[in-house]
Amino acid sequence: MIQTASQTHLQNLQNTIALLERTPTVLDSLLRDLPETWTLRNEGEKTWSAYDIVGHLIHGELTDWMPRVRIILKFGDSKPFETFDRFAQERNSKGKSLAELLDEFARLRAESVRELRNLNLQEKDLERRGKHPQLGAVSLSQLLATWAAHDLTHLHQLSRVMAHQYRDAVGPWSAFLGVMQCNGHSS
Amino acid sequence: MIQTASQTHLQNLQNTIALLERTPTVLDSLLRDLPETWTLRNEGEKTWSAYDIVGHLIHGELTDWMPRVRIILKFGDSKPFETFDRFAQERNSKGKSLAELLDEFARLRAESVRELRNLNLQEKDLERRGKHPQLGAVSLSQLLATWAAHDLTHLHQLSRVMAHQYRDAVGPWSAFLGVMQCNGHSS
Repeated sequence: MIQTASQTHLQNLQNTIALLERTPTVLDSLLRDLPETWTLRNEGEKTWSAYDIVGHLIHGELTDWMPRVRIILKFGDSKPFETFDRFAQERNSKGKSLAELLDEFARLRAESVRELRNLNLQEKDLERRGKHPQLGAVSLSQLLATWAAHDLTHLHQLSRVMAHQYRDAVGPWSAFLGVMQCNGHSS
Repeated sequence: MIQTASQTHLQNLQNTIALLERTPTVLDSLLRDLPETWTLRNEGEKTWSAYDIVGHLIHGELTDWMPRVRIILKFGDSKPFETFDRFAQERNSKGKSLAELLDEFARLRAESVRELRNLNLQEKDLERRGKHPQLGAVSLSQLLATWAAHDLTHLHQLSRVMAHQYRDAVGPWSAFLGVMQCNGHSS
């Protein structure tokens, strides 16, 4: 199904902004001062902890979302996006506490949302095309929707990573807890 | 792996309380005043929206978690728990706004956590057994861990239900978004 209705792109933009501006508070409410059992443990070798996920979201603000918006508005599909480095947080988070990462993410996200609002994007802007290095033609509308869905995919991952820490503690109840059956598609 | 270390049950209790007391604020930060596209839509017939999930969590506070704790402490495994009604929210939420449900959940959860703390549970209490109508023998420690993991399973579900609303809007990016591949094990 392709969304073509004129109003839908602008409505999606408002829905997207409403979600984007909430995510830092959601993560802060959940993770700040939470015991390290929940925040520093992962699901095994080469998987991410809550700490890693926040670092990844910071990297997205710095290099992915608004930078790609700017590329589409300036160059259209004549200049492909940079490939997103999914492991940059290992370098960027070094030496920082989770509280510092939460502060950094909140500050960067607020700046991103401010810039996005100030662009005052219209329907014709949202239909502009960019070039994704793997996916090919994508629209600005799709990029912005993906930004919000990316927040949700990492909230999904975060709840799974945290639940994993209680896999043994819940005993026989694990059979009833859907999150314990999640096979990590949102890693 | 069975957790038998004496300290583990008490540590888990502290970790559990830390999570339980955060969940209302997490949901409030995410859902209050969010556009209805995110909060009232579900994944199709007989599935839950964010609104339904908050109603379900309210019902858990009223009939599941602390009531079961009290049964274990009073009757041990001589009295099975009541079966949890997973659809009670359809009745209980009727006519209430999401904001009212968020307020109600916050109030009930705060009461539950207060009562739990006041019990001042010790290692020997946490090892006490209860009888689950389907699962059979369970410990108080497992019940409390399940309470926290149940919050996480519904955060996992919530992020998936919300992401579902953007399945078309993200276009080709859906291939990269793990949450879009989640098959609903946490429904």
